[in-house]
Amino acid sequence: MLRDVRDDGTALDVVGIGNALVDVLSHEADDFVATHDLVKGAMTLIEPDRATQLYEAMGPGIEVSGGSAANTIAGVASFGGRAAYLGKVHDDQLGVVFAHDMRANGVVFRSPPATDGPPTGRCLIIVTPDAERTLNTYLGASAYFSPGDVDAELIELSRYTFLEGYLFDRPEAKAAYRTASEIAHGAGRKVALTLSDTFCVERHIDEWRPLVADQVDVLFANDAELRALYGIHLDHAVDRARDEVETTCVTLGPEGSLIVTSEGIVEVPPHPVEVVDTTGAGDLYAAGVLHGMAKGLPLAECGRLGSIAASAVIGHTGARPGQSLAQLA
Amino acid sequence: MLRDVRDDGTALDVVGIGNALVDVLSHEADDFVATHDLVKGAMTLIEPDRATQLYEAMGPGIEVSGGSAANTIAGVASFGGRAAYLGKVHDDQLGVVFAHDMRANGVVFRSPPATDGPPTGRCLIIVTPDAERTLNTYLGASAYFSPGDVDAELIELSRYTFLEGYLFDRPEAKAAYRTASEIAHGAGRKVALTLSDTFCVERHIDEWRPLVADQVDVLFANDAELRALYGIHLDHAVDRARDEVETTCVTLGPEGSLIVTSEGIVEVPPHPVEVVDTTGAGDLYAAGVLHGMAKGLPLAECGRLGSIAASAVIGHTGARPGQSLAQLA
Repeated sequence: MLRDVRDDGTALDVVGIGNALVDVLSHEADDFVATHDLVKGAMTLIEPDRATQLYEAMGPGIEVSGGSAANTIAGVASFGGRAAYLGKVHDDQLGVVFAHDMRANGVVFRSPPATDGPPTGRCLIIVTPDAERTLNTYLGASAYFSPGDVDAELIELSRYTFLEGYLFDRPEAKAAYRTASEIAHGAGRKVALTLSDTFCVERHIDEWRPLVADQVDVLFANDAELRALYGIHLDHAVDRARDEVETTCVTLGPEGSLIVTSEGIVEVPPHPVEVVDTTGAGDLYAAGVLHGMAKGLPLAECGRLGSIAASAVIGHTGARPGQSLAQLA
Repeated sequence: MLRDVRDDGTALDVVGIGNALVDVLSHEADDFVATHDLVKGAMTLIEPDRATQLYEAMGPGIEVSGGSAANTIAGVASFGGRAAYLGKVHDDQLGVVFAHDMRANGVVFRSPPATDGPPTGRCLIIVTPDAERTLNTYLGASAYFSPGDVDAELIELSRYTFLEGYLFDRPEAKAAYRTASEIAHGAGRKVALTLSDTFCVERHIDEWRPLVADQVDVLFANDAELRALYGIHLDHAVDRARDEVETTCVTLGPEGSLIVTSEGIVEVPPHPVEVVDTTGAGDLYAAGVLHGMAKGLPLAECGRLGSIAASAVIGHTGARPGQSLAQLA
């Protein structure tokens, strides 16, 4: 795939960088969230002891490869896009599962696994009857992704470099983020960012406002995250995003999404689906939009692909599509 | 649970013994089966190299605790029955997943994990568009279950000891089977066996005919397995089972099942469901029937519980129910 270089010097559509995690999902009653002091709907970082304790309390689980940007990249590949991923797993059973699933999706994944340090990271996901997911992440090996792990060749070969906001939760990953962004822009490529999580935005608000304005070409956020970034009503947040970012995609849950540029606002309808588990909905929306943008499609069509991809994971348990997105598109 | 001994001296309804496996499932097109020389619908034992090769060829997977008897036992517990399981995992990440999921189902699982030898076993499951599952099992640590691992206390405390035919594929596990059967009968308990797989029956046909006649009180088989055991038409196989076994449960796929005793034949209708993946259907049918029998319910009611439990796993990917069977019953 990498040798098939196109006229613009790229061989890839999107390369993603993020925390490489395996998801452990269980469906629980509403009171589980309160009993275990979870922050419903959010992503909370947890330490190993807490992870062990919470896992013991969870019901029988299913294990599926996850990680926000990794889900997006798997989605791009499922659409038939050319995609690569950078992230760190350990050389253990869950690391093998993560790497297998990326490559089985057709994703270029050549980050070497760590042979010392903590095990492969995992995200303990509680899905409540309202289909909301509550994320509890033990970063494990993924937290040790550092600037030295940034694969400059893949970034230079990609039309878009896609970064997840969760990277900002660790200094080394944050440094890697900046390195990747500089390489991408230095090669004349675009940088896309997802804000990931409202609390994540609030944890890093002072760094993020200038970073988004200066370094981000395509911004993904849900309405709460965008308001967390700009601290005002959605209308005003959208106006501000339009001033500062080339393209901003705002997801609105069951109401669809908006794609905002200096040209105007494209309203994207949702793709109807019976909601089972919203895990990965935002990740897959980004997959559809980025796949479309990398192909140079009109924004309304990019949004349509985003809605289709999101619906493909909302209808089942887990954050990766169970069928080829290319066939659904 | 074990201290709550009932009038008949039991504290458990069912204890299961089998190969402790984690399933890795992927949906594949029909030609995958031919391309990789798989035996469609059957369980084939594979060595580590073959497992690695096949896994590399498989698409993105989901990992869920499996193992035939383990699925049955998880089902009994999901009905609210008192259940225990004996089987061997390694002290590794997949072993932790298996043990967690058993205990999270409310199953007594106290078999210590192996700290040397091969890793936790896994079953690579290919689900084709017709919802048929093709099993490729790398036994790993599970193959080292031996007579010394038979927990006599749990067997003596259980109304039923449930054994999977797959145990016969390894000499040590076969010896453990005989030990468990003797302990159960010595304590005045019943022994149940599932024939597991047509090829498995054929591999051990000479040992199985006398063993079923002498040591099995409740036999589970699908129609092909029962015919493999008795080598004749289904009607004749049923007659012969009736002569040799106290209770024989014959599953007939979408046509439901038969429960055969010297008193007659109970015809059990299937529970309607949209078929997604038949993995675990037979295992869960056995769960419902055994749960009912341990409660002393009429055979027609036992069969109804079997049909409900089977339908609960046929409708999704994976062999364990996603919701409480007690609520469906």
